[in-house]
Amino acid sequence: MSSPERARTLGATTEAPLTHLLHTGADRGLPVAPASGRLRPLGLGEVQITGGFWADLQKLNSSAMIEHCEKWVERMGWTTNFDSVVAGTIAESRRGREFSDSDVYKLMEAMAWEIGRTGDHAMDARFEALVARIAPVQEADGYLSTKFGRPGQQPRYSDLQWGHELYCYGHLIQAGVARGRTTGEDEFVRLAVRAADHVCEAFGTGGIDNVCGHPEIEVALVELSRYTGDRKYRDQAQLFIDRRGHGRLGDIEFGAQYFQDDAPVRDTAIMTGHSVRALYLAAGAADLAVDTGDGELLAAITSQTLATLARRTYLTGGMGAHHEGESFGVDYELPSDRAYSETCAGVASVMLNQRLLLASGEAAHADAVERTLFNVVATSPSQDGTAFYYTNTLHQRVPGTIPDEDEPSARASSSLRAPFFEVSCCPTNVARTVASLGSYLASVDDAGVQLHQFASAQILAPLGDGRTVGLSVETRYPDDGLIRVTVIDVPSEDQGAEWTLSLRVPAWAERAVLRVDGEATSVASGYAQVTRAFAVGDVVELELPVVARWTWPDARVDAVRGQVAVERGPLVLCLESTDLGASVNIASVDTSVPPIELDGAVLVQVTTTEAADVAWPFGAAAETDPLQVTDRGLISLVPYHSWANRGPSTMRVWMPVA
Amino acid sequence: MSSPERARTLGATTEAPLTHLLHTGADRGLPVAPASGRLRPLGLGEVQITGGFWADLQKLNSSAMIEHCEKWVERMGWTTNFDSVVAGTIAESRRGREFSDSDVYKLMEAMAWEIGRTGDHAMDARFEALVARIAPVQEADGYLSTKFGRPGQQPRYSDLQWGHELYCYGHLIQAGVARGRTTGEDEFVRLAVRAADHVCEAFGTGGIDNVCGHPEIEVALVELSRYTGDRKYRDQAQLFIDRRGHGRLGDIEFGAQYFQDDAPVRDTAIMTGHSVRALYLAAGAADLAVDTGDGELLAAITSQTLATLARRTYLTGGMGAHHEGESFGVDYELPSDRAYSETCAGVASVMLNQRLLLASGEAAHADAVERTLFNVVATSPSQDGTAFYYTNTLHQRVPGTIPDEDEPSARASSSLRAPFFEVSCCPTNVARTVASLGSYLASVDDAGVQLHQFASAQILAPLGDGRTVGLSVETRYPDDGLIRVTVIDVPSEDQGAEWTLSLRVPAWAERAVLRVDGEATSVASGYAQVTRAFAVGDVVELELPVVARWTWPDARVDAVRGQVAVERGPLVLCLESTDLGASVNIASVDTSVPPIELDGAVLVQVTTTEAADVAWPFGAAAETDPLQVTDRGLISLVPYHSWANRGPSTMRVWMPVA
Repeated sequence: MSSPERARTLGATTEAPLTHLLHTGADRGLPVAPASGRLRPLGLGEVQITGGFWADLQKLNSSAMIEHCEKWVERMGWTTNFDSVVAGTIAESRRGREFSDSDVYKLMEAMAWEIGRTGDHAMDARFEALVARIAPVQEADGYLSTKFGRPGQQPRYSDLQWGHELYCYGHLIQAGVARGRTTGEDEFVRLAVRAADHVCEAFGTGGIDNVCGHPEIEVALVELSRYTGDRKYRDQAQLFIDRRGHGRLGDIEFGAQYFQDDAPVRDTAIMTGHSVRALYLAAGAADLAVDTGDGELLAAITSQTLATLARRTYLTGGMGAHHEGESFGVDYELPSDRAYSETCAGVASVMLNQRLLLASGEAAHADAVERTLFNVVATSPSQDGTAFYYTNTLHQRVPGTIPDEDEPSARASSSLRAPFFEVSCCPTNVARTVASLGSYLASVDDAGVQLHQFASAQILAPLGDGRTVGLSVETRYPDDGLIRVTVIDVPSEDQGAEWTLSLRVPAWAERAVLRVDGEATSVASGYAQVTRAFAVGDVVELELPVVARWTWPDARVDAVRGQVAVERGPLVLCLESTDLGASVNIASVDTSVPPIELDGAVLVQVTTTEAADVAWPFGAAAETDPLQVTDRGLISLVPYHSWANRGPSTMRVWMPVA
Repeated sequence: MSSPERARTLGATTEAPLTHLLHTGADRGLPVAPASGRLRPLGLGEVQITGGFWADLQKLNSSAMIEHCEKWVERMGWTTNFDSVVAGTIAESRRGREFSDSDVYKLMEAMAWEIGRTGDHAMDARFEALVARIAPVQEADGYLSTKFGRPGQQPRYSDLQWGHELYCYGHLIQAGVARGRTTGEDEFVRLAVRAADHVCEAFGTGGIDNVCGHPEIEVALVELSRYTGDRKYRDQAQLFIDRRGHGRLGDIEFGAQYFQDDAPVRDTAIMTGHSVRALYLAAGAADLAVDTGDGELLAAITSQTLATLARRTYLTGGMGAHHEGESFGVDYELPSDRAYSETCAGVASVMLNQRLLLASGEAAHADAVERTLFNVVATSPSQDGTAFYYTNTLHQRVPGTIPDEDEPSARASSSLRAPFFEVSCCPTNVARTVASLGSYLASVDDAGVQLHQFASAQILAPLGDGRTVGLSVETRYPDDGLIRVTVIDVPSEDQGAEWTLSLRVPAWAERAVLRVDGEATSVASGYAQVTRAFAVGDVVELELPVVARWTWPDARVDAVRGQVAVERGPLVLCLESTDLGASVNIASVDTSVPPIELDGAVLVQVTTTEAADVAWPFGAAAETDPLQVTDRGLISLVPYHSWANRGPSTMRVWMPVA
């Protein structure tokens, strides 16, 4: 297919000296390629994470997470469903929920990015093997589903509320774009395009005048439009976004708000309903707004995102306060112990905020991406990459039980990471995000390069007018706050021309320091900028104050009144019973003793108490003070993302103040 | 049928001078009639509430609530389902959920008690009309369901997890017993007995070796055994209780804990899973334990009930901290704003605690009954008896919208009382409880009479050895703490014989005073006793300190740390925006000014604040104090049970301490 985007950028990546191993070099490996916006993204072909926290997570993804997901989607029958369609036995033998196809596609998206990132030939062969099983299931008109439409199954599109057919296509199309932007056009890309063509045919003007119960197709169609250069996919996304919010899906017990069909997204002041649905929809609407120049829609999405961050987001960046309906709560309703904070909502918030960052250049969105990556997305997988959190509580009151490693778990009842779930959207969502992490680090505009996220990396930055610069980033972030950027390549024709290097200073970073040529300047949160005619070997250092700090809640967050948390750089820390030697439920912290950093550990002064039994826990003040202090001492906190890696425990992020 | 219980008591009620209008005088009108236990209950034939809070609620039940429910079960199609079975059209025309029959039966139980209590002939005719529609649906072997077993429907007992067939029988049998114990044996009573016989046949030894997903049949079968004197029903209840807890129902996403099939009830230390299910099961197990003399089972039920009161119950007496699964949370997990506290769980807790009170004589259970009646059961109906709360939040953050009075509401999403629900267990449950309230006031033992709940009433108390005494209670409780008991009848042969009058002193009542012959004694919580040879005209007065008081939470209840509530006597009070003139979300209370009582109102010093917008609600202490004080003043609190009767509002029981 003809791709203006690919034509434009192909040269830059294949000729550039720092491009890493896109094994075909077909594209820049951009997960998101907006037609306009304040900043232009860099792709996996331009940013290679070389060490540290995110590199370790990418290694875990390569070595364990992706294969784990491959094994499990097979074991759960979600891939064999495709074989059953071919065998004609699907009606009687289908396994999994109505959306199980999507997890195969999401896994394939993860594999596509990973193959592009690493050139893993073995994984590529496995990817092709999956394609060979899926392709025969696609019908002549592009329809593709293991759940609907075959003899003995419900008819196509007979259950738009819950059927998830368009949701599945969304993930198929995203996987197709990922494949196209890394390996290049192939049978799988064409298959995804045929599915999208079918969607335009079936749901276009004059077709089925409705939407899918679960948004996702929108964000996928806009990206496919960018990839192919064909506007019809974007027009179809526009139709879906304009149709939604007028009650077409009908009512359900949770209310139409659950699937954002109660009000148009452009009239929505703050997110409500099912969190992942709301966030995917907003991400698609942001893409649409940027590409169509719909400033009003972009403003609406930006405003609702900022409002949601201000009033309906956990300290971790997690979203979704209700288990029931996996939904947002109302303003400031953020219970720690009942936090749903679905991993997928974290992924979706990262997607959305990255889009708004590119559109606006506003650091608040990069801050949200960072917070959510470190404290939600990175929390999900276990240390060995073979178990995942689906929900992410901020207060575990009762030690969990270790899930059977041979059985899928219920999504929300597991209090420890589980190998897989009956509804298993999260593990593959983490895998695709981690595989494409490189794209979150940096962007460019006509004036220069912006560093948004900090990891040791090699960056090749095409400034857009033919100039291309290379940067090397060295840092031990988030363990340490020093980020050293070295200019390692300036195109010869560009010597002497000025450009601007911008480095994000997170909102939490008070007294950050920027050093250029050994000269230090105090810089405020937002973006610290250095404009000069950089030469190869020039070094810019940003020193962020990565030290443990108390974090207090707004008075309106009732659930954590009288409690304090500790953060260190972008990491939320937590108190775990493994370190305390007692239940965290009866611990409090003495804030008159500042957090102490010792040998890489953060310690706070904790008081543990013995809880007397009471017949009734409410009464006159004297009656309700049954706690006897049993111990006081300095106790290590651990990064929230690492909790429960040492076995069942109780844990709390917010600690009562003694 | 032969009823030893009826034979034993018939004389007492029909001959007694104070018996009120059981229109047939057939029985004592006992909702619960244990075979043994520390105390013996009095029935509707022996206790007549004559004025005050509960009398007003009974009048509302008579004049509005019951007819409202009759109208709605018809309108929802739940009664016409029976007609459709007769017409042979049920498979295609059935309306309502699988358990809709139960609401017809629960309504009929309410009507039965009400007819017994008031002799309402018009209501009796309507009751008989319902019987005439239901009776033809019962099959030859006693099976009775509008949901299963007819051509085009699923087979009988093909879905024990969710089918609710035995649950429906439970309510049918309870209604049958209510009818039998008030009006006497009739066609409906025989119909209920035939259904119970069918259950024993189908699920007895050698029959289907399983239980119903929703407990309820157990408590009903034990009571039917008491009513008929036939042990086989109790034996069947025993089978169900012994079978449960071994995983027979299979697993579901919520886990087998949801329907208490994860562990036998006799091995359960504290209640878990779906609250109403857990409480009905415990009530049935308590009945079984008492009648079979199974002390171990009774101890287990008592212990789990006390543990649940101590650690998993709201200040209101409400139970169920999770919307998801309508279930109990873990210990001390009691979020105000996400309190589920289902009205039916309140009813079930009242049932359970009343049974344990009769079994043990322990005041803690009567305290729980009182707290739950005043603050959960009484909260559900609106002032005019035509709308109901299904859930009972303790913190309403956003004013609700007034539900359409012509449409049923979703059960938990309504923030105001709604006329009816798609799942409408609560209104009929309130109706049956209010109609039978008389039975909660007093009991007898061989030594005398116990007053557990306080309302103006006439009481006829058969002491059990042929002696019968009459008492008149006058009180303005809960507005006022003075309870005056006058002896109005002592059987002539009993003159000069001593007996004991016991009056409950609630746990909250510090410095209660008992006055006999003008002599005052300070009495502790529990039961205050007067033993003497009472003469007609003797007066005993109990003076409870009904004044507004601060109530503080145990330090382990994280959700309300730093907050305080106000109670007055048995009533929990709350702050409502209607009185505050601002959102309660940004209000705090100054506890250095004690609650003030003025002209029947309770006022506290409240500070309201203006909430500044913040981009991120967590940070250094200085950043998170954006609230400017806008007003200070004395604000009226209202009884929690009356909240939202003046239109949409925000409300909180627990108020942040300024």
